[in-house]
Amino acid sequence: MKLLIINPNTTQQVTETIGAAAKAAASPGTEIVMATARFGADVIASRAEDILAAHAALEVAAAHAGQCDAVIIAASWDSGLLGIREALREPEVGLTESACKVATMLGDRFGLVTFGARSVPCYRNRVKSYGLAERLAGVGCVDIDRTRMYTDRAATVAKIVACARELIKQHGAEVIIPSGAVTAGLHAEIQAELPVPVIDATSCAVQLAQSLVRLRPFKATTGSFSVPLSRHVGGVDPAIARLFEPPA
Amino acid sequence: MKLLIINPNTTQQVTETIGAAAKAAASPGTEIVMATARFGADVIASRAEDILAAHAALEVAAAHAGQCDAVIIAASWDSGLLGIREALREPEVGLTESACKVATMLGDRFGLVTFGARSVPCYRNRVKSYGLAERLAGVGCVDIDRTRMYTDRAATVAKIVACARELIKQHGAEVIIPSGAVTAGLHAEIQAELPVPVIDATSCAVQLAQSLVRLRPFKATTGSFSVPLSRHVGGVDPAIARLFEPPA
Amino acid sequence: MKLLIINPNTTQQVTETIGAAAKAAASPGTEIVMATARFGADVIASRAEDILAAHAALEVAAAHAGQCDAVIIAASWDSGLLGIREALREPEVGLTESACKVATMLGDRFGLVTFGARSVPCYRNRVKSYGLAERLAGVGCVDIDRTRMYTDRAATVAKIVACARELIKQHGAEVIIPSGAVTAGLHAEIQAELPVPVIDATSCAVQLAQSLVRLRPFKATTGSFSVPLSRHVGGVDPAIARLFEPPA
Amino acid sequence: MKLLIINPNTTQQVTETIGAAAKAAASPGTEIVMATARFGADVIASRAEDILAAHAALEVAAAHAGQCDAVIIAASWDSGLLGIREALREPEVGLTESACKVATMLGDRFGLVTFGARSVPCYRNRVKSYGLAERLAGVGCVDIDRTRMYTDRAATVAKIVACARELIKQHGAEVIIPSGAVTAGLHAEIQAELPVPVIDATSCAVQLAQSLVRLRPFKATTGSFSVPLSRHVGGVDPAIARLFEPPA
Amino acid sequence: MKLLIINPNTTQQVTETIGAAAKAAASPGTEIVMATARFGADVIASRAEDILAAHAALEVAAAHAGQCDAVIIAASWDSGLLGIREALREPEVGLTESACKVATMLGDRFGLVTFGARSVPCYRNRVKSYGLAERLAGVGCVDIDRTRMYTDRAATVAKIVACARELIKQHGAEVIIPSGAVTAGLHAEIQAELPVPVIDATSCAVQLAQSLVRLRPFKATTGSFSVPLSRHVGGVDPAIARLFEPPA
Amino acid sequence: MKLLIINPNTTQQVTETIGAAAKAAASPGTEIVMATARFGADVIASRAEDILAAHAALEVAAAHAGQCDAVIIAASWDSGLLGIREALREPEVGLTESACKVATMLGDRFGLVTFGARSVPCYRNRVKSYGLAERLAGVGCVDIDRTRMYTDRAATVAKIVACARELIKQHGAEVIIPSGAVTAGLHAEIQAELPVPVIDATSCAVQLAQSLVRLRPFKATTGSFSVPLSRHVGGVDPAIARLFEPPA
Repeated sequence: MKLLIINPNTTQQVTETIGAAAKAAASPGTEIVMATARFGADVIASRAEDILAAHAALEVAAAHAGQCDAVIIAASWDSGLLGIREALREPEVGLTESACKVATMLGDRFGLVTFGARSVPCYRNRVKSYGLAERLAGVGCVDIDRTRMYTDRAATVAKIVACARELIKQHGAEVIIPSGAVTAGLHAEIQAELPVPVIDATSCAVQLAQSLVRLRPFKATTGSFSVPLSRHVGGVDPAIARLFEPPA
Repeated sequence: MKLLIINPNTTQQVTETIGAAAKAAASPGTEIVMATARFGADVIASRAEDILAAHAALEVAAAHAGQCDAVIIAASWDSGLLGIREALREPEVGLTESACKVATMLGDRFGLVTFGARSVPCYRNRVKSYGLAERLAGVGCVDIDRTRMYTDRAATVAKIVACARELIKQHGAEVIIPSGAVTAGLHAEIQAELPVPVIDATSCAVQLAQSLVRLRPFKATTGSFSVPLSRHVGGVDPAIARLFEPPA
Repeated sequence: MKLLIINPNTTQQVTETIGAAAKAAASPGTEIVMATARFGADVIASRAEDILAAHAALEVAAAHAGQCDAVIIAASWDSGLLGIREALREPEVGLTESACKVATMLGDRFGLVTFGARSVPCYRNRVKSYGLAERLAGVGCVDIDRTRMYTDRAATVAKIVACARELIKQHGAEVIIPSGAVTAGLHAEIQAELPVPVIDATSCAVQLAQSLVRLRPFKATTGSFSVPLSRHVGGVDPAIARLFEPPA
Repeated sequence: MKLLIINPNTTQQVTETIGAAAKAAASPGTEIVMATARFGADVIASRAEDILAAHAALEVAAAHAGQCDAVIIAASWDSGLLGIREALREPEVGLTESACKVATMLGDRFGLVTFGARSVPCYRNRVKSYGLAERLAGVGCVDIDRTRMYTDRAATVAKIVACARELIKQHGAEVIIPSGAVTAGLHAEIQAELPVPVIDATSCAVQLAQSLVRLRPFKATTGSFSVPLSRHVGGVDPAIARLFEPPA
Repeated sequence: MKLLIINPNTTQQVTETIGAAAKAAASPGTEIVMATARFGADVIASRAEDILAAHAALEVAAAHAGQCDAVIIAASWDSGLLGIREALREPEVGLTESACKVATMLGDRFGLVTFGARSVPCYRNRVKSYGLAERLAGVGCVDIDRTRMYTDRAATVAKIVACARELIKQHGAEVIIPSGAVTAGLHAEIQAELPVPVIDATSCAVQLAQSLVRLRPFKATTGSFSVPLSRHVGGVDPAIARLFEPPA
Repeated sequence: MKLLIINPNTTQQVTETIGAAAKAAASPGTEIVMATARFGADVIASRAEDILAAHAALEVAAAHAGQCDAVIIAASWDSGLLGIREALREPEVGLTESACKVATMLGDRFGLVTFGARSVPCYRNRVKSYGLAERLAGVGCVDIDRTRMYTDRAATVAKIVACARELIKQHGAEVIIPSGAVTAGLHAEIQAELPVPVIDATSCAVQLAQSLVRLRPFKATTGSFSVPLSRHVGGVDPAIARLFEPPA
């Protein structure tokens, strides 16, 4: 099977990091196709940037519609996930969505570790929008210089671990989800320091995408997740416009 | 004061209808500036189209940043509202957000009347995202041919009224919010047929925008609604990119 | 338009403080009529006192029914608000209700600063009764001697600011609502010390009352907020009894 | 032990009906003292009347403070319950509160049968304020002429039973709570027609009040249910004012 | 009346401690019959042990079905409570269920003090399953050596009190429920140190069981709490199998 | 990898049906090991039977601990799931848990179709206990004679489809989960009649179990899902007792 992984951030290096992690997580026979957002933020960190990322991800998804078996939205914001799920005929999963699903099969409540205080309510609301607020122990946040994050891995791991320990001790987190692409590849080091399962979101997304492909779910022909056909959409990439066209 | 009203749909006629309603609702001294989305759906009816609308609305808002006193997102989907609220320094309100706020000052639980079954869960989730799920009696839906909706006003009113009566009788709605631009201008006729308050969303948005301007709220310098400064955003309208630039 | 502002506390000085703040917040053409509770607590601080305040506020409202355009319940307990909303034909707003509505248009979750630990659960439950519990970051409480509160304004401001900072830092509050009449007039000083919007409840109530008057909402003739006509009520102020009489 | 039962309605006949039911439900050695509200509605049916009833009930409770072992608020609105619980040193229970507590020990979700559509949201909110919304299957409502209700018992029972069957069949109610004093004495007849437990609220309140007396709970000296001492309260019955005085 | 009290732990000494507390709490004329689980954990401390305890409690209940007036599940886990409530014709109450019901008649939110961190989420979920999550201030946990707990009562009391104070101060608990059999007999000492009501779960369960017996509730003949008749159950104690047999 | 599938019902035929479905759903290289409960109900249909099933499932799981890579609890009640998850070192999934997780990646809210009215609240509560209540559109119930269910497949499918259509139309279900082993093998026929995705719970459980095995999650050494070591458990199958023994 072929999985399309969309990086809604514009940073090619992030795409590569996620691609490597995804390939390592995929089963034999699963082909990984990576694609990067054409426009928007280099690293999404606000609702305004998420608006751009959602459009950019939809554009990429539209370009690959019908040519892959499932789509992974590879940003912890899950940018555009629900709209893409609606418009495409293939299954979709998001990084944070996948991580939450796996986490809730391993412990009571999970804690999310994110970067930058301003995204804390955004993650909390994202989890709430999935109907999983009761399973969220809390969202913790690490403040670290962007450059140092990539150059000083030991410091990054140490800060994530410290934040996770606080979530475990003070908020009763029984599973830890480190958010974001930056944590791809650090999973083993973080897990080694913590007494509860640590979730590698990319691996979870790959696994769940594979599962959905194998389950061959019927695409709804009614309801809010059926394809919004025969809509008039203009001024956008032709691939997007084609999504709304009735089948020939 | 000057209120910028953004129509995130691309249909100019809708912009004009809303503009007329907004001018009628505004207080003396309030200037209404109308603007229409440059790209996207003619009438938003799905999450995928809402993704485009959010970007288009952000683009319009960015172009007017600093030149108006408040912004109204004039689609019942409130497309892009929270991201625009974050990125601009002026207050913002959405049509459905405003309607919900007024409705909850008039009755116990409100009912939403919308068009097309597929948008029902979208509206329910939008209300839920505002933290107001407990005040929502239900979302009813009217099925009516798009053309007939604009040409046969009596039929449109009759269908909205029938749906509203069901919400009142079966779900205990004590206030009715008809969604969407199509209902602008029909308020008096709908109200005449119903025993509970009917909300005119455009008027509510104008009133609340005026109120916010007069209250002169401080723009947060921390938290998720502070301006996301010094971000790298590319491939988008320069006005959007400027939003993320630190002040000179 | 004419706004009746009811102080459900019996302290005339509080009435005057609120009156001054309300006049400053009102638009040109808005007349403010102040009235004070005839009986009850000088400053409401418990559920038992709130029971008395609700009756006293209803009595004042009844005496002015038909002679004003809207009513503001000017205590942070919003004493009697829902019952008065039901019995009168004019719109009503409460101080805390108004503050919550404005706060949720400015940030993700808000924090309430109140006076005296015993009222903390009462405010939390009040917010919950409005269906807004999800938007409440927390209720903080300042302990300060009543006399000092009025004589040492700098100390009062300092304590409110310290409590607000805790709500911002520990509980993620993105907007601060200082409760109560005592904070009327201190808004600018508190705002100057905090990085998020601070709500002036009296101004919000005046703005929302004005908005409701301009929207001319239909008075429900069915449901729990229609006037409870033809009820037999005895032993109370004749103005209250008249509320329940069918129109001539 | 001595139980004070306060009828917050002003109708003496209701007091007598409840008194008879309470005496039948009480254990040997339990003395029932009945008292009727001095002012307010003859039968509470709106929030405005509940405001008056709360004050009237507080007045009665104040007059008996220290002379009974527990207090029962004998209206299905539980008028003034929390304020009285706070101000008195003896335990209090309300009719609906007690009924809900017993119902949730007998089935999954309960249905409430009430009189008059306008009180439906009020009961739903009362249950919600007790934190029991998840256990509420629904509130059904019977419309019956007040006079006929008392003269044609068979018709009253038939209507309650029909409403209860709807709650059982359509909403999954597994226990039925008929509200109000009018249903006192009809319990056996209603139960005979239904396949799930029917709650007699008066009996439940008597049982729970007896239980609380025997448990001799400590009266909080801190928190929102400690006595609000040293407050200045004027213009009310001296017994009420005395509640707020510090002990000699 | 005769109350069967089932200890779902296998420790006979716990049965005796609870028996003594229950006898002290019972009204004259109430006979207490104690029974201990035949198999399972000596002191339940995990979900896996709770599975065993539920079966063991059901076995004891089945053996006494028809020979008692009500059943008390005397473990703070309320092991097997809902299944036993379903299968028997007599009323049942659990220790924690009873404690929560009484606590919510005395204060706003209650705090639970338990032993061992691993049971914290289990208690929280148990309260949530009763639909009472909104009334739960928090679950605190005491770590104390099992042996010392029984030999050094002063230390046990001190640790419970310290944990309770934290729940009162940091989480706004207005009532404290110490969990478990180990706290039976320590109630007076704990109460003496705290400014809010402390709940003695065993006494509450006895009181509520007595109340239910006196209320003589109808046993549902439909719904999820009717007896699951004519089921085929094999390989278990014959008394359990008999529960599912249709009446002769 | 080797997946242990436990049928907590005692009916061997159900084990075989599930085994066939599981083998069809498994990926190459996945070995399916089936096991049936030693005692309990032939088909679980009540909480009391679920108590027995949980113990029986734990017993089977204990016997296979260390000899499989993951465990599937193959009853729609997910009997004993959380306790087994805690006590074993291998991952576990339940049929309904898995179905809910997949359903929420395909649509907004899902509807559950079950058999027999008495299990409706039990399924609703199970979903609620997973923290997914907001995603549940409703639980519908089919009444069909047990024998006919197995002999007249067309009638069974027709009834499930009718119930599903009601959930879609009246309650907005966008995905349908038919519960129970009886529906194994009917998936294609049910899907053919419905316009939204139909979930095959067994296939979902197999896919998610495979995913968990591949993710190799760390087994918590703290928190409520760590192994409850060094507990004293008696009177049960030696394999269960061994679960609680500290590693050599």
